[in-house]
Amino acid sequence: MQLSYFKKQFQRKRGQVNKYLDQCLPSAGTFPGPIYQAMRYSLLAGGKRFRPILTILTAELLGGRMSEAMPVAAALEMIHTYSLIHDDLPVMDNDDFRRGRPTNHKVFGEAMAILAGDALLTMAFQLITDKVKNKNLAARLVNEIAKAAGPDGMVGGQVLDIFKDIKSKGSLGKIMSLSPGVKWSPDIHRGEKYVREIHQRKTAALIVAAVRVGALTAGARPTQLNNLTRYAQNLGLAFQVVDDLLDLKGSQGQLGKTPHKDTRVGKLTYQAVLGENESWKQSRDLITAAKKSLDPFRSRAEMLKALADYVLQRGN
Amino acid sequence: MQLSYFKKQFQRKRGQVNKYLDQCLPSAGTFPGPIYQAMRYSLLAGGKRFRPILTILTAELLGGRMSEAMPVAAALEMIHTYSLIHDDLPVMDNDDFRRGRPTNHKVFGEAMAILAGDALLTMAFQLITDKVKNKNLAARLVNEIAKAAGPDGMVGGQVLDIFKDIKSKGSLGKIMSLSPGVKWSPDIHRGEKYVREIHQRKTAALIVAAVRVGALTAGARPTQLNNLTRYAQNLGLAFQVVDDLLDLKGSQGQLGKTPHKDTRVGKLTYQAVLGENESWKQSRDLITAAKKSLDPFRSRAEMLKALADYVLQRGN
Repeated sequence: MQLSYFKKQFQRKRGQVNKYLDQCLPSAGTFPGPIYQAMRYSLLAGGKRFRPILTILTAELLGGRMSEAMPVAAALEMIHTYSLIHDDLPVMDNDDFRRGRPTNHKVFGEAMAILAGDALLTMAFQLITDKVKNKNLAARLVNEIAKAAGPDGMVGGQVLDIFKDIKSKGSLGKIMSLSPGVKWSPDIHRGEKYVREIHQRKTAALIVAAVRVGALTAGARPTQLNNLTRYAQNLGLAFQVVDDLLDLKGSQGQLGKTPHKDTRVGKLTYQAVLGENESWKQSRDLITAAKKSLDPFRSRAEMLKALADYVLQRGN
Repeated sequence: MQLSYFKKQFQRKRGQVNKYLDQCLPSAGTFPGPIYQAMRYSLLAGGKRFRPILTILTAELLGGRMSEAMPVAAALEMIHTYSLIHDDLPVMDNDDFRRGRPTNHKVFGEAMAILAGDALLTMAFQLITDKVKNKNLAARLVNEIAKAAGPDGMVGGQVLDIFKDIKSKGSLGKIMSLSPGVKWSPDIHRGEKYVREIHQRKTAALIVAAVRVGALTAGARPTQLNNLTRYAQNLGLAFQVVDDLLDLKGSQGQLGKTPHKDTRVGKLTYQAVLGENESWKQSRDLITAAKKSLDPFRSRAEMLKALADYVLQRGN
């Protein structure tokens, strides 16, 4: 597939996702107004819409309709956005810019930013159970997404990510002494295994969920679901490795967020553990593996394969 | 019904809810350990378990089984607990004590407290879709609870509640200018209508949901659901009015949280608007109305009626 054709399709879907998200939230004037205003500010701030487009493309690969996948796709973007709002808070990653604009708490204050995140997370589950007509399916989708977003998934990844900060605040020992089952070592957060664990939970889990719910919406058979899940696991990990690498070389205009932030705050990234060259090699290998999982779908998987190539291309 | 009998039943159910909640969360040592430890700290801190018991009693009134209502009841307690953790944060109500212990962020730090709240909210929806066997029903329950907990319900109530703080930080004008549809006046947060609006969203919405999901779990007919909803609306509002009044007179030992906090921070309470006597009168009227809605259920509703009396009694 030509990259230019893929990009055109991607932008078209992005426009459709944006339009749908805009309609999901009441206008800013709705009572209690400030909460919807704060939610809209971050949700409609022009992200890539990677996760919802992944859901839609997966559903379409299996013959599903975009209109049926769209509410689930939108719910995923709400959850992704909530996680960004909370991650950007001063007590977390303390970021001032996101998607090229001041972060939510910079505009609305920290209290409202916390609540806007809470509201987006809650509304995601409302949206799915409102809009998905097959209620059996709706329950399954909620379950998949909640598992991916919860303490074993995305939230758990963020916890592992801030471990070092907890340590620097001196209270980690207190927490660890309350958690006798965790094998703690001073180097626990220095190894490749640990950084992969973070990435898998913090980023890949929701990307895997995006693919799986797209597949489930279109009535995937078990073997199809397995192949698509393997695609998403490799894609999701590659996505974060490339994201880390972009932080190294990007400008604020390109990234929409503060560059070199990861390095400056001593964040645990792939390149910090493996070096830049090995990180590129691993991301290429992951993308190759992702595409290979799609072979059984033959030409129908061209868009998802192009999407995988695109993830790698972002870094070049 | 004798108060002593009711109290014994209430305590028995409380023990069962506590036991179930304990089993819902992996032990503290589970990887990623600290998040489960932080969740357990607040979830198992010995609350009244008012909402889950309400769900169970409502289901039992209609002939439902406690075992079927329990996962939904537990999910509500998780959502209630998440809201307490986030409300207690320094940028919100800034409370140091809750349920007789240091608040979550005092023990685990603010970042972990935000994440523990996020995780409890997410896990609530996972629990329902995991454990409720009828998946159609599970989707309906998720929908009811998400609506009650989201921007039109509990989160919206908290937004209205912190309006004044936003004003004092000087950024309210900015938000209001972004929300042209909201009719703003300097006295918007001084009237009875406004305080009722806060209470209905912040407290009553989740109490109404607790009753409704209990009823739905037991297969309530529409008229039954309507009567029980009216009961819960009055009960939920009375609950918060009495809670405000308790803040006036309670000691830290009784309340488990900092007393006189509402008054000290200039919080908008019923008694601040209506005075103590009128607040007591209104809470009595609300409880009378709540119990009246249960008349069609005759003697089967005795536990729910006793629960309503108990809400009022807490203040005496």
